[in-house]
Amino acid sequence: MDRKVKIALIGFGSVGRALARVIALKRKIISSKYGILIDVVGVADSKGMALKAEGFDEYELLKLCELPRSGVNLFKPYAYQGVDLDVLYDNTQPEIHIELTPSEYISGEPGVSNIVYAIDRGAHVVTANKAPLVLRYREIVSRALSKGVKIKFRATVLGGTPFIETLMNMRSHDIEKVEGIVNATSNFILTEMHERLIDFNDALKRAQALGVAEANPALDIDGIDAAAKLVIISNVLEKPITIEEIYKESISGITLKDVIDAVRQGCVLKSIASFDIRGRKASIRVVRIPKSDLFAQINGIMNGVRIRSDATEVVFIGKGGGSMETAHSVLDDILSIAMEYL
Amino acid sequence: MDRKVKIALIGFGSVGRALARVIALKRKIISSKYGILIDVVGVADSKGMALKAEGFDEYELLKLCELPRSGVNLFKPYAYQGVDLDVLYDNTQPEIHIELTPSEYISGEPGVSNIVYAIDRGAHVVTANKAPLVLRYREIVSRALSKGVKIKFRATVLGGTPFIETLMNMRSHDIEKVEGIVNATSNFILTEMHERLIDFNDALKRAQALGVAEANPALDIDGIDAAAKLVIISNVLEKPITIEEIYKESISGITLKDVIDAVRQGCVLKSIASFDIRGRKASIRVVRIPKSDLFAQINGIMNGVRIRSDATEVVFIGKGGGSMETAHSVLDDILSIAMEYL
Repeated sequence: MDRKVKIALIGFGSVGRALARVIALKRKIISSKYGILIDVVGVADSKGMALKAEGFDEYELLKLCELPRSGVNLFKPYAYQGVDLDVLYDNTQPEIHIELTPSEYISGEPGVSNIVYAIDRGAHVVTANKAPLVLRYREIVSRALSKGVKIKFRATVLGGTPFIETLMNMRSHDIEKVEGIVNATSNFILTEMHERLIDFNDALKRAQALGVAEANPALDIDGIDAAAKLVIISNVLEKPITIEEIYKESISGITLKDVIDAVRQGCVLKSIASFDIRGRKASIRVVRIPKSDLFAQINGIMNGVRIRSDATEVVFIGKGGGSMETAHSVLDDILSIAMEYL
Repeated sequence: MDRKVKIALIGFGSVGRALARVIALKRKIISSKYGILIDVVGVADSKGMALKAEGFDEYELLKLCELPRSGVNLFKPYAYQGVDLDVLYDNTQPEIHIELTPSEYISGEPGVSNIVYAIDRGAHVVTANKAPLVLRYREIVSRALSKGVKIKFRATVLGGTPFIETLMNMRSHDIEKVEGIVNATSNFILTEMHERLIDFNDALKRAQALGVAEANPALDIDGIDAAAKLVIISNVLEKPITIEEIYKESISGITLKDVIDAVRQGCVLKSIASFDIRGRKASIRVVRIPKSDLFAQINGIMNGVRIRSDATEVVFIGKGGGSMETAHSVLDDILSIAMEYL
């Protein structure tokens, strides 16, 4: 009496692979617990697709994860050269489209086109790619509404936690301020500078060596990723701001002397994303936080956000990213759609 | 085009009055934001009822809050002597039953009977009263399921936050451990003992003077309230334990010397509720927490819970109670039912 749910993974980098592994591992448990059997019917990366209308079994999902990057087109006999969503949808009819392509904040592509395509085909959408929401939130959400499909995106902010769902669930509250540490890479670098008393470049190198920072770390260290998250939060709260409106301070200008000066005053430096809803002001700033403040305890790759409403204050702390954690958030969105709308 | 939603408040103490005030204050905003108009059609306390089938207006709701305790039967011309749910339901047909009677952990009454009655009449239920869930979770939930109504109870654990909803939303996670500070009164008393270096009795007196502890504080200081919350958490996770199975250490045995010894070792004493899901072990214990630990920063009436799963760790910090905060959680549950099931 399992309900089969057909999903397609568009984008097959670290989160896509982590998701395939989690599904392989937990598919049977989820089926026995919730009566939902997740069938991955299509996987696409930048160069090709692997399609199987009846769904890949656990073993095939794990084999897919062993392919080289952009190597899905090698997965015989299910391989297709090039990406063509018409072919994918016609052959496999996915009910939920999982958008896991990388974020790009100029055009938002290929995420925007992929999501719009999915909605127009009547598929529900789960996205871990922030860019389409940052650039086209209203358009995408209203398009989904008019087509009667859902779009879920809890992996986009505090990837490993259900923060977005929590915020959406506080309907009776007048949310006044949302602020916190929302970028794991820059928090890791600042934490390293404090704990090892090293300068920015050495801390960045350590972050890159550990895989916490990318080869091109600009999105993270210049506050763009954090600003993108504030844009999504602002849209969820129906007080939309654009990424250009947000003041963004890079952590690359922070010196070891700045760190030492802060420590001497009983503080630590943190890059704080802040959205003052009433004033409609949003910024990413490096600020001195007293050591006794909760935010001073949020170190390394941890993230933390404080939600202040007219009635209460809630602090949410969890891992900011990590592909396994993010994959679980994507899977939670899939299950939420499957249980509530399918 | 507002959708009217008729609710009845059963129990009219501090949370009931706070809820009436919040509804009076936010009813029109909620209507414009969500298209839902909340009509309070009945209010009952221990001695009587006030019923108005078309719903009390904002002014009447505020007037109701000015009545003395157990004085709803004075609210002419809507007053009834004594509580009779047949009369309440026949006259007003509430769609959502709000159970706000006090918790009592022997029989669970009057909460259990009230909730069962509401379910049998086809009303959805929101409860801030923990006792019925602690004593009869499965029976109540399966009865609601069979009658096609929903029961929501986010106000029962970390009253001012959407913690329960968050936990329910982590479906893909294998939750391994839930632990934290879940009783505001005992945390306040321990915090006072540390900050003022006073003994337990003086700290308790301060808590009582400030309204943080009740005249009979046993439920809070002996760990019964915290254990009740673990029972609810265990049921939400479908690994039910009973309140008797939980080891409960009272904070009343903690001396000033214990506090000083802990501080000398760089620690603070906290009453920690812990539920190890795999081992099926649950306890309320006073333990030494290193000052650098996040839990050591959760002081006064704040609560905090750490959820550990196979994939991640999330910490949730917020006010444990407070009637206004709790009223907002109840209202969020009402809105969630109204938007999803009515």
